[in-house]
Amino acid sequence: MRWARIGAALAWGVSALGAVPPPADPSRAAVQVRAWRRAHEADILREFADLLSLPNLASDAVNIGRNADRIVAMLRQRGLSARLLDGRGGPSPVYGELTVPGARRTVLVYAHYDGQPVDANAWTSPPWTPVLRDRPVEEGGREISLESLPSAVPGEWRLYARSAGDDKAPIIGVLAALDALKAAGRAPTVNLKLLFEGEEEAGSPHMADVLDANRETLRADLWLLCDGPVHQSRRMQVFFGARGETDVELTVYGPLRALHSGHYGNWAPNPAILLAHLVAGLRDEDGRVLVPGFYDDVRPPTEAERQAASAVPDVERALRHDMALAATEAGGARLPERILLPALNVRGLASGHVGASATNSIPTEAQASIDIRLVPDQTPEKVRSLLEAHLRARGYTVVHEAPDVETRRTQPRIVRLMWGAGYPGARTAMDLPVSRAVVRVLEEARGAPVVRMPTLGGSVPMYLFQQKTGSTIIGLPIANHDDNQHAANENLRLQNLWDGIEAYAAILADLDRAWDATLGSATPPGR
Amino acid sequence: MRWARIGAALAWGVSALGAVPPPADPSRAAVQVRAWRRAHEADILREFADLLSLPNLASDAVNIGRNADRIVAMLRQRGLSARLLDGRGGPSPVYGELTVPGARRTVLVYAHYDGQPVDANAWTSPPWTPVLRDRPVEEGGREISLESLPSAVPGEWRLYARSAGDDKAPIIGVLAALDALKAAGRAPTVNLKLLFEGEEEAGSPHMADVLDANRETLRADLWLLCDGPVHQSRRMQVFFGARGETDVELTVYGPLRALHSGHYGNWAPNPAILLAHLVAGLRDEDGRVLVPGFYDDVRPPTEAERQAASAVPDVERALRHDMALAATEAGGARLPERILLPALNVRGLASGHVGASATNSIPTEAQASIDIRLVPDQTPEKVRSLLEAHLRARGYTVVHEAPDVETRRTQPRIVRLMWGAGYPGARTAMDLPVSRAVVRVLEEARGAPVVRMPTLGGSVPMYLFQQKTGSTIIGLPIANHDDNQHAANENLRLQNLWDGIEAYAAILADLDRAWDATLGSATPPGR
Repeated sequence: MRWARIGAALAWGVSALGAVPPPADPSRAAVQVRAWRRAHEADILREFADLLSLPNLASDAVNIGRNADRIVAMLRQRGLSARLLDGRGGPSPVYGELTVPGARRTVLVYAHYDGQPVDANAWTSPPWTPVLRDRPVEEGGREISLESLPSAVPGEWRLYARSAGDDKAPIIGVLAALDALKAAGRAPTVNLKLLFEGEEEAGSPHMADVLDANRETLRADLWLLCDGPVHQSRRMQVFFGARGETDVELTVYGPLRALHSGHYGNWAPNPAILLAHLVAGLRDEDGRVLVPGFYDDVRPPTEAERQAASAVPDVERALRHDMALAATEAGGARLPERILLPALNVRGLASGHVGASATNSIPTEAQASIDIRLVPDQTPEKVRSLLEAHLRARGYTVVHEAPDVETRRTQPRIVRLMWGAGYPGARTAMDLPVSRAVVRVLEEARGAPVVRMPTLGGSVPMYLFQQKTGSTIIGLPIANHDDNQHAANENLRLQNLWDGIEAYAAILADLDRAWDATLGSATPPGR
Repeated sequence: MRWARIGAALAWGVSALGAVPPPADPSRAAVQVRAWRRAHEADILREFADLLSLPNLASDAVNIGRNADRIVAMLRQRGLSARLLDGRGGPSPVYGELTVPGARRTVLVYAHYDGQPVDANAWTSPPWTPVLRDRPVEEGGREISLESLPSAVPGEWRLYARSAGDDKAPIIGVLAALDALKAAGRAPTVNLKLLFEGEEEAGSPHMADVLDANRETLRADLWLLCDGPVHQSRRMQVFFGARGETDVELTVYGPLRALHSGHYGNWAPNPAILLAHLVAGLRDEDGRVLVPGFYDDVRPPTEAERQAASAVPDVERALRHDMALAATEAGGARLPERILLPALNVRGLASGHVGASATNSIPTEAQASIDIRLVPDQTPEKVRSLLEAHLRARGYTVVHEAPDVETRRTQPRIVRLMWGAGYPGARTAMDLPVSRAVVRVLEEARGAPVVRMPTLGGSVPMYLFQQKTGSTIIGLPIANHDDNQHAANENLRLQNLWDGIEAYAAILADLDRAWDATLGSATPPGR
């Protein structure tokens, strides 16, 4: 998952509710693979560590190619047909296929093998030197040699390396699930396709082309987006949507050179004040966007989505404590409900100087950086045109390049808007048979409720996958939420990998049956 | 003049209206000193260059002391009694005195011998190596050796050095006026006191103590504040007031650590948006301060002040062109009228990141830096309490230190206010006999109208001088407005020094008579 350009660490210490031990129903694939996994934990970890030892920046052509080649080899070793797709100018996506005789349905597992850039100095051990620790490094975790592992490796141990959580864990997880099913004598009941991307963290600039060029190859009855973390409560989580996004850099102008605020204050327009009014006119203090028409295309949440949102475990209290927030927006409404709506976030303001370097002057310009999260059926194009119309109605001349002096001399109020790329949000209906089947098979595997998120608050290009392949898309992440994703000391909590292997095994072996069952049943209210 | 911490260059190329040549009335001191000055321009410039070659940062104790000693010597050389006052912890102010037998009135000339810090790399020639040029350096001015000057040095030549304009020019100017009067056989008709400060550019932190300790010594019938530039039209300017100021750094808070704007946007409060609303609530887009009670203590301008303001030459059109401002605030009201009012200026905004370094996150805090210009009878204390009451009424908890985590966990909206020191504005009535006498004697000397500014927009501690000494304070600057004051390549246009010498001679020799004359006449309406 590309937590688009977030630099800040998101890890926060919500106390784990702990995994509910699944009941030992011997007919379930999840249970059948457990014994094999327990006997092979050291081998799984060593293969994982080998993969994690390959530097994997999308921009590092040589090493990103070594990752792709290694994964192809890992797939072939297991009897899958595997090859590199044409990256259409970017790193080659790895494509793998396992055709199951007699299978009527196809499941595609998507993950990515590239990782976020690293600030190596901030890491306790080098980012591409995988290190196992018996506790989180922040809590003084001790290093454990991968060469002398105990036969059962404790689930609370963590493997540290770039992409341990985001997003090589699903790759090793699904392959281990295949190994375990084979050992247990259980064949998958669905055809399996694998798509492992090599430039997700760079914004997937070539993915649309890849999808266009491989439309049939990549079509499946179900796409599983295996990226991101499980719920902060440590419960397994399935997500059915993601917000889209667009962003804009907004600049307003004052005098050509900074003017003395004493001699010219009250006379020369102050761009910082104009910007404050402009931003305040975009959104109220409680989250409501004030741009006329902004909510027109918002598809109201379904009753199923509302009910699922309200059933998501409450982590907000702990989060408020950890983030020192005395209150949240919209009268303390639940987080899962708030992210069903679009949002306008000011990610930055800059004008003149503050603090010790402040000068008594009228700044020459003021800038705001804004990201906008979209929900179905909003589009970046429509939002852009609404926002520009709103600014024009407020008397602004809207430009998209730096205005020249002549423009500044003749237009009383100028705002320059620099729009980033964007894409719409997407949602998969939660009451589709396949949606219910995925939840059912995972809950059976876990022996515990699964968190059903109607949507992620963040943005993944689910819309693109939906639109280009016509497949149903559901998100199934396995990494721990406190994996330091995108930051230094990224890690995977081993129990998350163990649980992930069981989840993939359940999907491969048991989904087909559950899917049939949901087709035969009425939609249970509220699920 | 301390153009409080302004880093930006203020020089702008308003075309000079040109100096109107004064008529040759042989009874005027100004005319009488001209011949002497013309014969001694090279000597004056060399003495000035010697003074300018001494580095003069207030914080550079050794060199600032050398400046003070040099000035004491220059005064004594002319027969004035001169000494260093106790700096009360800061550099010693230089005090000089010339008692004139039979004089009934005393005029004190205030200037400062310290200068702004320099960014030496930005200077064309080193800041403390005075260089004469035949045109502005920006226009390719050629260096002229100070050792081989022509007998008459053209008035458009400029002397480059730190403090050439701000504020050593009045020191050399008043001493040259004394020399010239002596040569012309004219004795001053008023007692003269001189006060040259050594830490004005550092904010005069010890001036109140110095004034308290020397109340009687520094009392005068008229204080002339000889600091700052003449009018942008190049006409001589007298100012009768200065705005006061106070400033505040204002911080509002969001989550303790930056949060992903997708996952938590719409839920976690965004401090940049809170700040935008807060700032927009302080001032409208047209300059009007929205803090209740803010204007209550504003003393309305007198009719004389209004008329003087409207008579100030219009430089706004040229300024708007140079600054590329298509419009100004308050429907294009005149600048001299606008600075009769108080002003709230946002000098900086900062939150999160903008542009290429923007991240999709909710910032942890947002900061605004604000300076407020005060007019009589506002006080910093009252304004501070009004602004804080306004923020409390908007639901903010006002703190003055960084709030701890517990405070952030319990107070929904916190604003931290860090107030700088401040002082009130001041105005001297324009229709006092002395006010009219100063204008009259300067207009007679120039043979041309003098710009009468009811107030400077900027802040000088006129209030402090007024309050501590009980004297009448009037500002009489001599430097060119385009002297790059506070910036690199500071300079003095020589004609401004020549005119300044004549102005000081006129004050010393002719003010007493003009003062008497105004006492005998009714106040002309509108002057």
